[in-house]
Amino acid sequence: MSKDSLFIRACKRQETERTPVWIMRQAGRYLPEYRAVREKYDFLTMCKTPELAAEVTVQPIDIIKTDAAILFSDILVIPEAMGMHLELVESKGPIFDAPVRDAAAIDKLETEGLIERLGYVIDAVKVTKERLAGRVPLIGFSGSPWTLATYMVEGKGSKNFDVVKSFIYTDPAAAHKLLRLLADAVVEYLNAKLAAGCDAVQIFDTWAGILSPADFEEFSLQYIRYICDRLETNGAPVIVFAKGVSSYAKLAELKCDSLGVDWTKEIGDVRREINGAKALQGNMDPTVLFAPKEKIRAETERVLASYGGGAGHVFNLGHGILPKTPVENTRYFVECIKELSVEWGLFF
Amino acid sequence: MSKDSLFIRACKRQETERTPVWIMRQAGRYLPEYRAVREKYDFLTMCKTPELAAEVTVQPIDIIKTDAAILFSDILVIPEAMGMHLELVESKGPIFDAPVRDAAAIDKLETEGLIERLGYVIDAVKVTKERLAGRVPLIGFSGSPWTLATYMVEGKGSKNFDVVKSFIYTDPAAAHKLLRLLADAVVEYLNAKLAAGCDAVQIFDTWAGILSPADFEEFSLQYIRYICDRLETNGAPVIVFAKGVSSYAKLAELKCDSLGVDWTKEIGDVRREINGAKALQGNMDPTVLFAPKEKIRAETERVLASYGGGAGHVFNLGHGILPKTPVENTRYFVECIKELSVEWGLFF
Repeated sequence: MSKDSLFIRACKRQETERTPVWIMRQAGRYLPEYRAVREKYDFLTMCKTPELAAEVTVQPIDIIKTDAAILFSDILVIPEAMGMHLELVESKGPIFDAPVRDAAAIDKLETEGLIERLGYVIDAVKVTKERLAGRVPLIGFSGSPWTLATYMVEGKGSKNFDVVKSFIYTDPAAAHKLLRLLADAVVEYLNAKLAAGCDAVQIFDTWAGILSPADFEEFSLQYIRYICDRLETNGAPVIVFAKGVSSYAKLAELKCDSLGVDWTKEIGDVRREINGAKALQGNMDPTVLFAPKEKIRAETERVLASYGGGAGHVFNLGHGILPKTPVENTRYFVECIKELSVEWGLFF
Repeated sequence: MSKDSLFIRACKRQETERTPVWIMRQAGRYLPEYRAVREKYDFLTMCKTPELAAEVTVQPIDIIKTDAAILFSDILVIPEAMGMHLELVESKGPIFDAPVRDAAAIDKLETEGLIERLGYVIDAVKVTKERLAGRVPLIGFSGSPWTLATYMVEGKGSKNFDVVKSFIYTDPAAAHKLLRLLADAVVEYLNAKLAAGCDAVQIFDTWAGILSPADFEEFSLQYIRYICDRLETNGAPVIVFAKGVSSYAKLAELKCDSLGVDWTKEIGDVRREINGAKALQGNMDPTVLFAPKEKIRAETERVLASYGGGAGHVFNLGHGILPKTPVENTRYFVECIKELSVEWGLFF
């Protein structure tokens, strides 16, 4: 069933009856059902317990009725599995108490047997696939090497990212060593997820937008390209979301199917920039979900109109849903997309 | 002398012998001479004492040898002069303990006699002009209505700006009332600075980039346009810096001379996008100043090459200089621009 789903077909720019929708962080704190689980277990325990991860992954499918599920996990399980001690407190953001800032620290990262140590993710994919029973496709994900490196080098939240940038400017050889090591890990990780049953994978480059275009090419994009060239997808779509980039031309040359777009761009402008070479995923401002229903409906309509109809649009927010978002508004948002994308006669 | 200065001519896209340079926040914490003053007085006292403001404004001209001075002040003196209690602690960011979040709070803002209460800024312009004695031009500045409103509504630093966005989406009429009131204040404020002797003015829209393109037009750009249409410049250049916008086409239609560009864009791409309609100011990543000198030199050269030579480039960072930036690197950066922009034969 999954291969014929609206989501998979839209990712591949095939005909669909309406625009499919899923929401980044849809398995998250805005849902009371999620919070009920989270009250009993800490975040990492939830990631590491396949039954719990599967439970919260499936919740939004029943409650919000999105067209795809995304496996509950965190991008930082990779550095954690490399031996970095990770503290994941949602209110504080992730903290590594011993950040990686030189060649010696990079050499200490444990890359051997990584996928075995991440076996809980692979198990979570299998349990979730069973629970979904073909209702909607399951998306697996990974952080990009640059975004993972940013967290690993900074060690905690940053305003200006001066630590990681000083690192890449001062010791580019070490930076490239770290990024290459992470790229290899991501290839292995996403291929394992695909082999376990994920119907699509998304690469999150959350911190793409802090780099100049030249630095983005050197320190991020080349490693995303490296990964895309090595994925064994067997037809599963690959989505690349590079938040905050100013141009999509080079992203459009990647061996992937779909590009995520944040809310600071007109999705129609991006479609024109890349001549429709990829499906696009996005891009409503997540804060619009705090607005009255008329505004949510109007903005949904505006994004659909900006994309302009036809194949290749997966609706989403332009970034993750915020923790205090009202559930009712989120449900209404999904209804609007399902209804308006048909009403508008945007399809074949 | 000021009208013939490199900076003023470059802002007006007139011929120059080399690329002029100044640095956003050049009068700031990275300078030991600034910190020596700051140790004795709090930030607001420095803003409100013309002799102190003038002293730190002139420091970088002597130490870093930039081609323009920018009056030491803060964009939040406007809401402070409207009666909002402001706490300015550099390490914490600005805090308003009673944010403006509804029509009643907007009605309480004291707009009458505003410029009189901001007389200390006007006095600081006069004292600074005397101290500069025509060596370099003096830039005055203001926050844009949207950026001022963001601080006034949020009340403190924000990660997602959900408070101000909920406000504009839920009560757009009140939001527009606040923005219009601020636009009128900014017109009056910048005109007073120009009348007192500022040789140029810059409007900072620091939070432009958190809005979708449609919301940027509705809640920010129309008010910047309102201001630009009402400035009595008597030939002084007007610079608009809208950080994080994805397109410059509409900004290029403003009645202004120069547009600021942050480091996430190729300055040459922006020049092409607007067909050279405005001078451009920018755009090296501020964190490059933490790098070894070879990298600073290479990046300076890269930005000059991206702009591509000829008239209309004012070199700057893509955002304010960071507090821990080494002074020696900053001085070297300015030297590189002065040297390379001539060596490159980029000029007439």
